[in-house]
Amino acid sequence: MSAIRLGGGPEFDRIRAIAAALGDRAPGLGDDVAWLEVGGRHLAVSTDVSVEGVHFRRDWLAPPEIGWRAAAAALSDLAAAGAEPLGVLVAVTAPADEGPATLAALMDGVGSAAAAAGAGVLGGDLSRGTALSLAITVVGVSERILRRSGAEPGDGLWVTGELGGARAALTAWRAGRTPAAAARERFARPQPRLAAGAWLAAHGATAMLDLSDGLGGDAGHLAAASGVRLRIALERLPVHPAVPAEADAAGEAPELFAARGGEDFELLAAMPPGFTAASPFPLTRIGEVEAGRGVALELGGRPVSVPGYDHFA
Amino acid sequence: MSAIRLGGGPEFDRIRAIAAALGDRAPGLGDDVAWLEVGGRHLAVSTDVSVEGVHFRRDWLAPPEIGWRAAAAALSDLAAAGAEPLGVLVAVTAPADEGPATLAALMDGVGSAAAAAGAGVLGGDLSRGTALSLAITVVGVSERILRRSGAEPGDGLWVTGELGGARAALTAWRAGRTPAAAARERFARPQPRLAAGAWLAAHGATAMLDLSDGLGGDAGHLAAASGVRLRIALERLPVHPAVPAEADAAGEAPELFAARGGEDFELLAAMPPGFTAASPFPLTRIGEVEAGRGVALELGGRPVSVPGYDHFA
Repeated sequence: MSAIRLGGGPEFDRIRAIAAALGDRAPGLGDDVAWLEVGGRHLAVSTDVSVEGVHFRRDWLAPPEIGWRAAAAALSDLAAAGAEPLGVLVAVTAPADEGPATLAALMDGVGSAAAAAGAGVLGGDLSRGTALSLAITVVGVSERILRRSGAEPGDGLWVTGELGGARAALTAWRAGRTPAAAARERFARPQPRLAAGAWLAAHGATAMLDLSDGLGGDAGHLAAASGVRLRIALERLPVHPAVPAEADAAGEAPELFAARGGEDFELLAAMPPGFTAASPFPLTRIGEVEAGRGVALELGGRPVSVPGYDHFA
Repeated sequence: MSAIRLGGGPEFDRIRAIAAALGDRAPGLGDDVAWLEVGGRHLAVSTDVSVEGVHFRRDWLAPPEIGWRAAAAALSDLAAAGAEPLGVLVAVTAPADEGPATLAALMDGVGSAAAAAGAGVLGGDLSRGTALSLAITVVGVSERILRRSGAEPGDGLWVTGELGGARAALTAWRAGRTPAAAARERFARPQPRLAAGAWLAAHGATAMLDLSDGLGGDAGHLAAASGVRLRIALERLPVHPAVPAEADAAGEAPELFAARGGEDFELLAAMPPGFTAASPFPLTRIGEVEAGRGVALELGGRPVSVPGYDHFA
């Protein structure tokens, strides 16, 4: 059995079964990136798949946005590792009737996201398939190794940027409405927090991950990997400006709406005691690390429960 | 426009459109692997996608074979670069009703192929999708950089192993027959020629690639990348023992049948003048490199034409 430690749900049952089958052929599963030592450097690699109908819909996004978003999601794993991107590889499957122009537009988006991160597109593969999908692999380097598993009781829990914007866009689309421009931008052109990740790593982060499945789910992964309990006060959550209107329409508290929102690609970091946020980017303390297990979410002093996103639920 | 140079066909029209869209954000496209310099080492990375209904069928292969084959196809790119594998990453998409047991069996095959190559499974990603697909990324290191583009007039053209075995299995399956055991093994458990690739690189190979699309198509890629003409005498082709019976049933010459067969994952190498094959593995001289363009295939002294495999044709 591998050392993989994850939260609950059908998706993670499948990942645990895979980890059990691989055994010691895959000792390091469960982090945002895998770490390799090459020529005395710490190399971080990660692969991330985006599938039409699961991660994006073509009536919501134009092909360059689909490409940008897929690449940004993968680059976000390097951000969560505090690594500097070197390059991106792209495996695309597309229906047989997908012409060169659409594929070129898709890859233009991938190339733009890579270039914005200071990385090139190193290579790729193209195959016919039943749906459009992009599997994006990122390669980066770092001065230190940073995982999900190093959080210690007494650490503070911090989050970058604002949460819930991507979910606000999704909620509007699903209700047949046009999302607010700022919310749509968060979903269509997420910004991998590479500079923030490198800064947090350099300032002593003990554990970090990116919020791809939502704070509710991802906090559980960090807690499980580190063998600690996270206590989070949701009223401290930095809520994206597009959230209140959508949360109101959904009859949810804005903080709960934001905590359930996946794919903001902000970073959740455990920082050592004494750390204070003189950061050159928005950074908010939302809770602390304690001895124990699981995640205690509170809103107005009362415990609340927030499910994470599950691809197989 | 990137420096990518490929043979013809709808698949390569799409790849050329992608390369044009990426421009100088993707300067190195078109080789089996991308090369990065990390800590003074040459790092080779490549990504390769296998899709149900395109690269495999579940009524032909068991899940561990599907996993093995997908990983072996990706590792074969490292073989073609003469690189030593460090690790493998796997992005899997699977229908929502695909249970943990099938996914574990699939990954068991990936893990076995990686372990046989001396590499671990570094990480992965899992998503729901309409069909089963595996995007496999491989990372390796090498003493030297080897591409498709270095062949020079006067070089000899060599191929490892035997060709046509995988196609013999496919032909039998498509005709509703059970393939010969040796042919089925070639399709279900291809062996990436890692030791051969490293040996050929160390013995001065000027250009190399793996025969994934068949000699007919891949020779054209090597010729285009190197800006040379390849002259190949098909009667010299090392033909897999399962080929004659299937070629006979198809009314084709065995050498033509073998040259059209993709996915044998043998290596095609241009070796400098004077090279002779005192190799510790089967290696056959099948032709030579000349000034000019394209591929001249001959059988019994007469020119013949052999199409390559095209995912979008």
